[in-house]
Amino acid sequence: MPSSDDVTSDVDAPADFDLPRVVIAYVKPCLDAGEHAAKCALGHMMHVQAAVICDGHDFLKADLLYRRRGEEEWQHTPMKSLGNDLYEGDFTPEALGYWEYKVKAAIDRFTSWRDGLIKKLEAGECTPIDGEIGLPIFEGMIKACNRSPDRRHIEHVNSELELLIGDFGDASKEVIDKTRALLLDPEVARINHDLWTASETVESGTPLPLFVDPARAAFSAWYEFFPRSRWEEIAPDGNLKDCLPRLEYAAKLGFDVVYLPPIHPIGETFRKGKNNALHAEPGDVGCPWAIGSKHGGHKAIHPDLGDFKDFAALVDKAKELDIQIALDIALQCSPDHPYVRSNPEWFVHRPDGTIQYAENPPKKYQDIYPLNFECAAQEDREALWEELKSIFTFWIGKGVTIFRVDNPHTKSFRFWSWLIEDLRREHPEVILLAEAFTRPHIMAHLAAIGFNQSYTYFAWRNAREELDQYMTELTKGDLQGYYRPNFWPNTPDIYTDALQYNGRAGYIQRFILAATLTANYGIYGPCFELMEGIPLKRGREDYLDSEKYEIQTWDVRQRHSLGTMIRKINEIRKKHPALQQNRTYMHHSVDNPKMYAYSKTDPSGTDIILTVVNLDPWQTQTGTIDLQIQELGLRPDLPYQVHDLLTGKLFEWRGWRNIVSLDPRDIPAHIFHITQHVPETGM
Amino acid sequence: MPSSDDVTSDVDAPADFDLPRVVIAYVKPCLDAGEHAAKCALGHMMHVQAAVICDGHDFLKADLLYRRRGEEEWQHTPMKSLGNDLYEGDFTPEALGYWEYKVKAAIDRFTSWRDGLIKKLEAGECTPIDGEIGLPIFEGMIKACNRSPDRRHIEHVNSELELLIGDFGDASKEVIDKTRALLLDPEVARINHDLWTASETVESGTPLPLFVDPARAAFSAWYEFFPRSRWEEIAPDGNLKDCLPRLEYAAKLGFDVVYLPPIHPIGETFRKGKNNALHAEPGDVGCPWAIGSKHGGHKAIHPDLGDFKDFAALVDKAKELDIQIALDIALQCSPDHPYVRSNPEWFVHRPDGTIQYAENPPKKYQDIYPLNFECAAQEDREALWEELKSIFTFWIGKGVTIFRVDNPHTKSFRFWSWLIEDLRREHPEVILLAEAFTRPHIMAHLAAIGFNQSYTYFAWRNAREELDQYMTELTKGDLQGYYRPNFWPNTPDIYTDALQYNGRAGYIQRFILAATLTANYGIYGPCFELMEGIPLKRGREDYLDSEKYEIQTWDVRQRHSLGTMIRKINEIRKKHPALQQNRTYMHHSVDNPKMYAYSKTDPSGTDIILTVVNLDPWQTQTGTIDLQIQELGLRPDLPYQVHDLLTGKLFEWRGWRNIVSLDPRDIPAHIFHITQHVPETGM
Repeated sequence: MPSSDDVTSDVDAPADFDLPRVVIAYVKPCLDAGEHAAKCALGHMMHVQAAVICDGHDFLKADLLYRRRGEEEWQHTPMKSLGNDLYEGDFTPEALGYWEYKVKAAIDRFTSWRDGLIKKLEAGECTPIDGEIGLPIFEGMIKACNRSPDRRHIEHVNSELELLIGDFGDASKEVIDKTRALLLDPEVARINHDLWTASETVESGTPLPLFVDPARAAFSAWYEFFPRSRWEEIAPDGNLKDCLPRLEYAAKLGFDVVYLPPIHPIGETFRKGKNNALHAEPGDVGCPWAIGSKHGGHKAIHPDLGDFKDFAALVDKAKELDIQIALDIALQCSPDHPYVRSNPEWFVHRPDGTIQYAENPPKKYQDIYPLNFECAAQEDREALWEELKSIFTFWIGKGVTIFRVDNPHTKSFRFWSWLIEDLRREHPEVILLAEAFTRPHIMAHLAAIGFNQSYTYFAWRNAREELDQYMTELTKGDLQGYYRPNFWPNTPDIYTDALQYNGRAGYIQRFILAATLTANYGIYGPCFELMEGIPLKRGREDYLDSEKYEIQTWDVRQRHSLGTMIRKINEIRKKHPALQQNRTYMHHSVDNPKMYAYSKTDPSGTDIILTVVNLDPWQTQTGTIDLQIQELGLRPDLPYQVHDLLTGKLFEWRGWRNIVSLDPRDIPAHIFHITQHVPETGM
Repeated sequence: MPSSDDVTSDVDAPADFDLPRVVIAYVKPCLDAGEHAAKCALGHMMHVQAAVICDGHDFLKADLLYRRRGEEEWQHTPMKSLGNDLYEGDFTPEALGYWEYKVKAAIDRFTSWRDGLIKKLEAGECTPIDGEIGLPIFEGMIKACNRSPDRRHIEHVNSELELLIGDFGDASKEVIDKTRALLLDPEVARINHDLWTASETVESGTPLPLFVDPARAAFSAWYEFFPRSRWEEIAPDGNLKDCLPRLEYAAKLGFDVVYLPPIHPIGETFRKGKNNALHAEPGDVGCPWAIGSKHGGHKAIHPDLGDFKDFAALVDKAKELDIQIALDIALQCSPDHPYVRSNPEWFVHRPDGTIQYAENPPKKYQDIYPLNFECAAQEDREALWEELKSIFTFWIGKGVTIFRVDNPHTKSFRFWSWLIEDLRREHPEVILLAEAFTRPHIMAHLAAIGFNQSYTYFAWRNAREELDQYMTELTKGDLQGYYRPNFWPNTPDIYTDALQYNGRAGYIQRFILAATLTANYGIYGPCFELMEGIPLKRGREDYLDSEKYEIQTWDVRQRHSLGTMIRKINEIRKKHPALQQNRTYMHHSVDNPKMYAYSKTDPSGTDIILTVVNLDPWQTQTGTIDLQIQELGLRPDLPYQVHDLLTGKLFEWRGWRNIVSLDPRDIPAHIFHITQHVPETGM
């Protein structure tokens, strides 16, 4: 078999008298003409699509080529036609880091000839000449086989064919059947597909980049808590030592990433008081995002939380539980941060010599000094960027590989590009979650330049149409190739109306939506599972007495906690590959606008999960769901089994239309696992 | 003022410690990453959009740069923000040929500072230092002004500002007002926008190509007839001489392109008979697309039609009437074509030495030999391609610059790319209409590689949803930048159900839709305006006794002809720039699904045409239209005038909802010109 390296690219050649005639276009995913890398997680399937077109009616064939960056040899897999000139292929990358892919295609001369020949034979319109036209094609195949073991098979088919050709004129049924058997042999099809001759083959230009990150970048359940908060009985001291049992709690609930807000020393100058008061009272603990004091900066641990030994114990415990610690990286400084004294050139200075604090005129944030990513002198910039990178590598050295990056959209995108490119070289295992709640193009760009996961607008999408439209945007458009949504029903800053006003059903609805719509999701607890919280004011999304500014006490042992339900749903997510990716999201209409039904399947289509949520937190809602059963690969003529994984109840459904009723006082959702028993036929 | 050439591109630079921080993305139109050119017709406005983003809250500014290919200097125009980080700019290219465009952007430091300062002043939170922060910005502006006359103005504003700064601490109303007047001065804004410093400016990478073609490429009305057909009284002989009065007829009806099916000698071998019969009877005239006989090939005129003197007279007459002749280029040969003898290497040979005729197994088209665009020898290919190009240049030499290209999708795309690139060099005035009725990606690719206009699926889009969805695809997506739809209600091959079954109303509906939905449209007459035709068979779209295979006689003087209405609508199209482009298409909902309402405006939004079509050919339909009046630039608090250009009736409408009723026995459509008188206010 010829290696694909024999193939030369014709794409960049000027349009001249060159052949071949095939054109490859719209290779997807393709970010910014290949400037940025698409994403695929280890062990996940990478799907590539392209339009492959040609003049006339010839059959075409296409292969997806892929390799790790730097490797010589391309691996290849056939692409299958999706109709309308689109072809799709997939592969499962088996190593972290950069990969690349491209598409090659050619006219399939064998199949084009064979198809016409068989049609003519069957229509009684064939002549020996129509058969003879195929002989040079066989000759070409035999030559291309070279020393491959396939050669013998093609030679055999060729000589058998030659014996039949004479009878094509007025072909008997026997001749037709023999010819069909000979030419429709799948082994011939396989060999034919694998033969590529350079002069006939087109490739899709410069290979497109792909970054392969850890499996957890694509599928994860996050649990956020403040390490300084106090958990009655379980963790009364609010320090890192106390976090060990909390990790056990999170692991028991099925979370696999535990995210801690900043654990660094907190500034004292202009420290904010409780409820974000402009002035702190004595004893106020300050906001963890005002990083830096005499005790150190981004590479130090707040003395009240413990020391590096405690931190190492935490990381060890996490490893034991198969969960990961995610730290918060907020690249900003309190006025007391060591950088302010050691490197004043990294900050903006006002004409009076003072350092410019953060502001959004007329609002002032005097407890925060932003870093100046565009310091005038190149060497200062370089030193600043290197120092900031060293914060990441410092904590990587301590065993942390997941970081939630605070407000990345207020720091230079060029800095992030440089940092991510650099980190990936040594540490492809790192996962960065972009905490950017801003405008769509900016959020998309941060994902394009490499953030592995991204916060989203999920918290503010409540109606069915809003949710479906957003899911369609995230899973069906270009974003799908590089933007990994992480759905959070709440955060310390986002306490939504749905949680404030809709009671227990509101929490469950938002949790189930987050956990089943996207493969990555998270909650800020324990206030979430305990459903505790008072808004700062009517119409505000901040919590009153927020943990951001004071130490809270929680009792996670309370009986009304949603912990059991959360645990069950995390178990369902782990058991069902359908819920471990986003691209197969499919909306199914229900004739009641309060009912939202959507399915996901694994890439092979065998694991089918249908979620139905009653979006009304107060009333029982009933509706007829119009299931796209054929699109789900189900046979419409047979019943199918619908197993509610939340209650254990099993239903038998038939056909497209089935009635669903959900009482929000119970559980306002079904998570159905759908199976269908297809009997063996007697054929 | 610094010329934009001072600006260096940072886009291709690796992410390093370089500034600036602005990022430009998604410049549109952009075909295949800039491989193919967008289109704009002479005198039309070219719209360019881009996302311009930056970290943080700074104000940004963006310019659209454009120039003819090969020119040194860029022209520039400011882009305006559309919100959501999108910016748009436009220019009107004033010469045919290739142009190019790119986007540049920078942080607008002046406006960022000014905006914060004024907010602080108004909130009473300002200090002199906040003013002083602006002084280096003024210094930079003065320096950048260099010797420009603007320098004096900025120096003046700067010195005035310096006088005020001292009072910013507890600013009086007078100080605030003075500062506002000084800094919000539009002249300062203009100067500030025009100042670009290389180190602060980002550009959008490689300039994108644009091809500027003649105005008629974007706005045209085509009339197709067979020159050999006989028009009673007017043109009884059916030859080129007879076409002169027919040009007058077409011009009178308001058409500006007259398209003639092939006028070349017709083959005799395997000639098709009437109604596509396999064998011709003596006297059968054959099909004009079976090109070539002993009388010549693609560069000859059928002897029955006349000679080159007649053709020259025809072209002269067209010029006099300000219409253009479009010829049909069908790159295929009858077995009698001179090429078959002179260059047998340009055809595919079967093993028995015969030439391969066209086939779509088991169907055979023995009267047609396809050309072999991939002849094995490079020099044969080269000779063939050059010869085919010479067909175009031959007819260009005879005064023809518009060609309707028959089935381009059955010829090598590479040939078209080469041909079009080559033709454009010498003849940017040429317009090619692609007659490809095939799958979407192929039709789009032909437009991408340069066909100026394209046939569409219009003939098979009948319901409101279908029409709106198709128009949205054509005018709102990527196609908009390069695919110029030409809507035909009928062709010699396409006699649709809407025309076969829906009577006079059906013809009018389809005509008005074609002529008002898109700027380019055409009809095949005189059977269209005479509403004559019988389908070959039930369920077939071919005409019985089609002119493709025999000579027909028409009487265009008949009183029931739609000629008067066609003439009126062509006049409306010429008078209203709203109907001369497609991008402003807007759908307005009507609560009756049989009523389809859509508007178009000119680029400035001042000329507004609203078309309402009753899609039911038999029943009066009434509906309430929900007009998007604010999107049309109308004030919702004032009445507006709605003038039906078809009947001359004038209505006064108010608000969003207005009732429309249309009786198909009369005219099943309104073409409204909307105006609104906005009174001068006493302010």
